[in-house]
Amino acid sequence: MTEGLPMAVPAPGLPARVRIHEVGARDGLQNEKTVVPTALKAEFVHRLADAGLTTIEATSFVHPKWVPQLADAEELFPQLADLDGVALPVLVPNERGLDRALALGARRIAVFGSATESFARANLNRTVDESLAMFAPVVARAREEKVHVRGYLSMCFGDPWEGPVPVRQVVRVAKALMDLGCDELSLGDTIGVATPGHVQALLAQLDEEGVPTDAIGVHFHDTYGQALSNTLAALQLGVTTVDASAGGLGGCPYAKSATGNLATEDLVWMLDGLGVETGVDLGRLTATSVWLAERLGRPSPSRTVRALSHKE
Amino acid sequence: MTEGLPMAVPAPGLPARVRIHEVGARDGLQNEKTVVPTALKAEFVHRLADAGLTTIEATSFVHPKWVPQLADAEELFPQLADLDGVALPVLVPNERGLDRALALGARRIAVFGSATESFARANLNRTVDESLAMFAPVVARAREEKVHVRGYLSMCFGDPWEGPVPVRQVVRVAKALMDLGCDELSLGDTIGVATPGHVQALLAQLDEEGVPTDAIGVHFHDTYGQALSNTLAALQLGVTTVDASAGGLGGCPYAKSATGNLATEDLVWMLDGLGVETGVDLGRLTATSVWLAERLGRPSPSRTVRALSHKE
Repeated sequence: MTEGLPMAVPAPGLPARVRIHEVGARDGLQNEKTVVPTALKAEFVHRLADAGLTTIEATSFVHPKWVPQLADAEELFPQLADLDGVALPVLVPNERGLDRALALGARRIAVFGSATESFARANLNRTVDESLAMFAPVVARAREEKVHVRGYLSMCFGDPWEGPVPVRQVVRVAKALMDLGCDELSLGDTIGVATPGHVQALLAQLDEEGVPTDAIGVHFHDTYGQALSNTLAALQLGVTTVDASAGGLGGCPYAKSATGNLATEDLVWMLDGLGVETGVDLGRLTATSVWLAERLGRPSPSRTVRALSHKE
Repeated sequence: MTEGLPMAVPAPGLPARVRIHEVGARDGLQNEKTVVPTALKAEFVHRLADAGLTTIEATSFVHPKWVPQLADAEELFPQLADLDGVALPVLVPNERGLDRALALGARRIAVFGSATESFARANLNRTVDESLAMFAPVVARAREEKVHVRGYLSMCFGDPWEGPVPVRQVVRVAKALMDLGCDELSLGDTIGVATPGHVQALLAQLDEEGVPTDAIGVHFHDTYGQALSNTLAALQLGVTTVDASAGGLGGCPYAKSATGNLATEDLVWMLDGLGVETGVDLGRLTATSVWLAERLGRPSPSRTVRALSHKE
């Protein structure tokens, strides 16, 4: 990287600081076809923390039958116990998953909902309302235990079966998740079709209906190259939590080189350039993604990782 | 593509219409290693026009020694004569190039300047002021002939030798190009390092110093994944001319899969989603990029092209 680049030039109306919710270790690795050793996952999370990430989604307590790649959650989670000051949320699908997470001392959990009936059916084998009913006791018990709860909301902009998703439909489920007691939401553009006006329309409507912007994270996919401009649009409306995946890990359903998750490095490049503080060291993070890509046997789809690692 | 996606949701403060200055046939193909047949280039330009593009940079009248890939300019340009209503600018480096372009009836030319001394030296073997002196008679004569002149300005945000490029330095050269008589400028982020605040700071300063925003085009590279968010930032300040390259052709100096130019398809996806009119049919454009990629023997780096062509 040429010294002094990107040049930091703030833009008006953006937050001073953004919290990056790093999903590579969970959302990224869960899609790997070959088994990733537990020790490698633990080292990955430690390296992410060393690069300055403070919220690192660690694993999932879903039934091993559904996500075999994360079947080692019980083994992995205790290996992260030394990471003081780093929030390590874990995904829990139901009460059984919550039991497992609480038994290991997890202090942050996430449930995974859908804004559309089609995806709720495909992913959870339930209607949207049935899935909310399934989450209710999970969220209630987590709150009793003073555990922080994130509610993921998938398919907030488009759905592969249903096409465009109306804003009012997303707002209804978002409010329902908040009413259950979620501390924060993550609005997912699961198939990557969102554009900035749609993002701002959803955020404005949520604000109008009483879902506070500081309880909202955005989770964009780069399938059509839109993730970073959507992120900018969200920051312009006051969002300060952004999900991203180191190296762009994960979410490549149809082509090796196509991407799913927004790469954390591409995000940090933009935020560094905007003078928005993240606490992340881009050089160390890139080195971590290069290191992991070598172990996974294929290059990172992150443009920033590719550019920086080819120049070094 | 799922029907109805992207869903069109306008964002406040954006232009109703954007003119895409398509650079794939010139800026894209000039970097090809193997010779692209003239007939293939002519078909490519015709297909771009069929997809709705109305400004298609066709070729370059630079000396064949420097850009052998475009040595067939005299042969190619007359094959585009049937494209009524399509602007076909051509690059001319000097008076000799202008003579050649005028002899073939070109009505739009472009000169290629640099905001930095290092790149002026590397690319033009001149200082910035010497290059402006070289352009002066070219622009003057073009204006006498009522030929439209675009002034490219490279390295407006960062330079591989000099690092960050101060805004005042870019503004000085931009004003000098306008004073020579250029009708429009194209602000180039040649190494892809710009971020949205930097883009807006440059545009604001140009406006303050009397360079009208409607005379400005933006030319972003996607090296670090920033091109589309920078474009959004430019649109928010009133820019209505955006350079892009079909399929993301061109500008891959160090890795096959890394990209240079913003892909026109990724841009059109965003603009379609924002309800900003371009006149471009995304499906036909994508089909053209897939068709060309097959002939060039490697996949398009455009995320939208990859996503749409894998789903079809």
